[in-house]
Amino acid sequence: MTKALEKAARAIEAAQHIVLAGHINPDGDTLGCVLALAHALRELGKDVLALSQDGVPEIYRWMPGADWIEQASDRRDFDLAIVCDAGAIHRVGYAITPVIESAPVLIDVDHHVADGTFGDFRLVDSHASATAELVWKLIGKLSRIYGKTLATRAVADCLMTGIITDTGSFRFMNVTPSTFLLAARLQRLGAVPSRIAELVFEDRSYASLKLLGRALDSLQLIANGRVAWAHVTTQDFEELDATDEDTEGIVNHVRAVHSAQVGILFREIPGRRVRVSLRARDGADVNRIASAFGGGGHRLAAGCSMDPPLALVESAILAEACRELQQPECGPAA
Amino acid sequence: MTKALEKAARAIEAAQHIVLAGHINPDGDTLGCVLALAHALRELGKDVLALSQDGVPEIYRWMPGADWIEQASDRRDFDLAIVCDAGAIHRVGYAITPVIESAPVLIDVDHHVADGTFGDFRLVDSHASATAELVWKLIGKLSRIYGKTLATRAVADCLMTGIITDTGSFRFMNVTPSTFLLAARLQRLGAVPSRIAELVFEDRSYASLKLLGRALDSLQLIANGRVAWAHVTTQDFEELDATDEDTEGIVNHVRAVHSAQVGILFREIPGRRVRVSLRARDGADVNRIASAFGGGGHRLAAGCSMDPPLALVESAILAEACRELQQPECGPAA
Repeated sequence: MTKALEKAARAIEAAQHIVLAGHINPDGDTLGCVLALAHALRELGKDVLALSQDGVPEIYRWMPGADWIEQASDRRDFDLAIVCDAGAIHRVGYAITPVIESAPVLIDVDHHVADGTFGDFRLVDSHASATAELVWKLIGKLSRIYGKTLATRAVADCLMTGIITDTGSFRFMNVTPSTFLLAARLQRLGAVPSRIAELVFEDRSYASLKLLGRALDSLQLIANGRVAWAHVTTQDFEELDATDEDTEGIVNHVRAVHSAQVGILFREIPGRRVRVSLRARDGADVNRIASAFGGGGHRLAAGCSMDPPLALVESAILAEACRELQQPECGPAA
Repeated sequence: MTKALEKAARAIEAAQHIVLAGHINPDGDTLGCVLALAHALRELGKDVLALSQDGVPEIYRWMPGADWIEQASDRRDFDLAIVCDAGAIHRVGYAITPVIESAPVLIDVDHHVADGTFGDFRLVDSHASATAELVWKLIGKLSRIYGKTLATRAVADCLMTGIITDTGSFRFMNVTPSTFLLAARLQRLGAVPSRIAELVFEDRSYASLKLLGRALDSLQLIANGRVAWAHVTTQDFEELDATDEDTEGIVNHVRAVHSAQVGILFREIPGRRVRVSLRARDGADVNRIASAFGGGGHRLAAGCSMDPPLALVESAILAEACRELQQPECGPAA
């Protein structure tokens, strides 16, 4: 990492026209990284274009520099591209890929464990809680090279947003002592974690809360309470004028049931395949369940898509979940 | 603080029989502090009794030393009492107060802003996110006095629980850079923040999640979306076999609606008065609304109780909320 960091910083030093991109369906980490770099590179007098194919979701529009983001570009004159948090290069989106690929030098900054690392310089560390931790190091390196303080309040706001988003406000297993130490530094620079957490987590659409209500109203336990499941139906989506984006986070509520080792949310999205999200704790492996139906993920979080009807998807997945838990009694909890 | 810390540590050094107590309706901070001190003082060979009048709630029973806690004691032979996180001495509970008062020397460790500080030595700092931050300092001072490492994994687990509980996992306004720095140290000692957050926050009863579902299903917006409100009815409580304890946290979901400055939850608890919980943000003052009906609290969080029927309580409170927001249009949002 140290060597890659040095080389990436030198590549930035050598470049003047730089394009930055995050992944599709952007979250606070990919946007925070792109914007933090945009602030730092502009401060260095670089010509910077920041791209996000799907734009900036409403809950992140307050981020400093959010209005710099463009969704596409015809330019092909960049001498460097930096892709943040993407997992694999195609995840910048079909409209952005040719812009990125037109640049002669490419830097990949990411914390995803993937076969998909790419580029000439790869700042990839799967132990980082968020790509924001790696961007912080890169900006620090640039500060030293240029003898200029690039860690501003704006950079701190952006990177704190990345960390808070990707750690669920320091609740996830990816948090390390380094994450906390960086959070302390970012707060000293002026980032206000409570404000960011409120903006990111406690600012939900009416439709998303109603949808959470419908989902929890459907909550059921099977397998002696070890599997909790819920669904949102086409009817729910239509009555509430809700979109798939409004379902974010619901599965974590399902998994929160005291007795449950596995939580499952089924989404019957109008006009699309049924999406299945699975979460586990205490030793269950939901990746095995999702994989049985062509999906994937990891032990604690996985997903798959299946053809309707909803009821058949539910019975197939729930039967597989009971098998995974070696639970012969797969009916409703007593 | 530094002087008080030194004096408190010297008082502990001079004592052999020490009683520790937290507050009634104990949370993770009061229990974490009592247990962390119990571990440290036992390590120093002291005779220690740890008291919590209301025992240890189920979600905290995993804490190391939780089975040491007693709910009462006939002993009056202590030469030192330490009360953690209580706000005021009577909050240790009527059964514990005489035990504490029988000790000739009393230490108050607390982060509550209160008129209620007490005792011979007062380690009180309202800027600490949790009393755990102050207990950490006290244990550090004792380590130096005795030349002995008292900061063990058990102590770290207890104090991390205090911090995570009292900061809502680093989401509340009380978090400071010092909080993050301490979290980094506690994690290095072996405390696992994700595990603790899961145990504290993501372990909910089936009834409480179903009740949240019912409440959000009832969610409505008025006053151009500036007021969001919801209710849980006697029928909900009875059908779900739920108790008032199962409603905890629901009002925060109600307040989370993007447009809402005020969130209100009405609880029609079987056989009791209707309880009204109010939450605000962005300059609204819900204390004024609650006070108009004999309740109270502060600007951002307040509550009151009123006689049924539910519908009349709702219309009275909602009208007052519209007045508070100077919102003449008090009907449902368009």
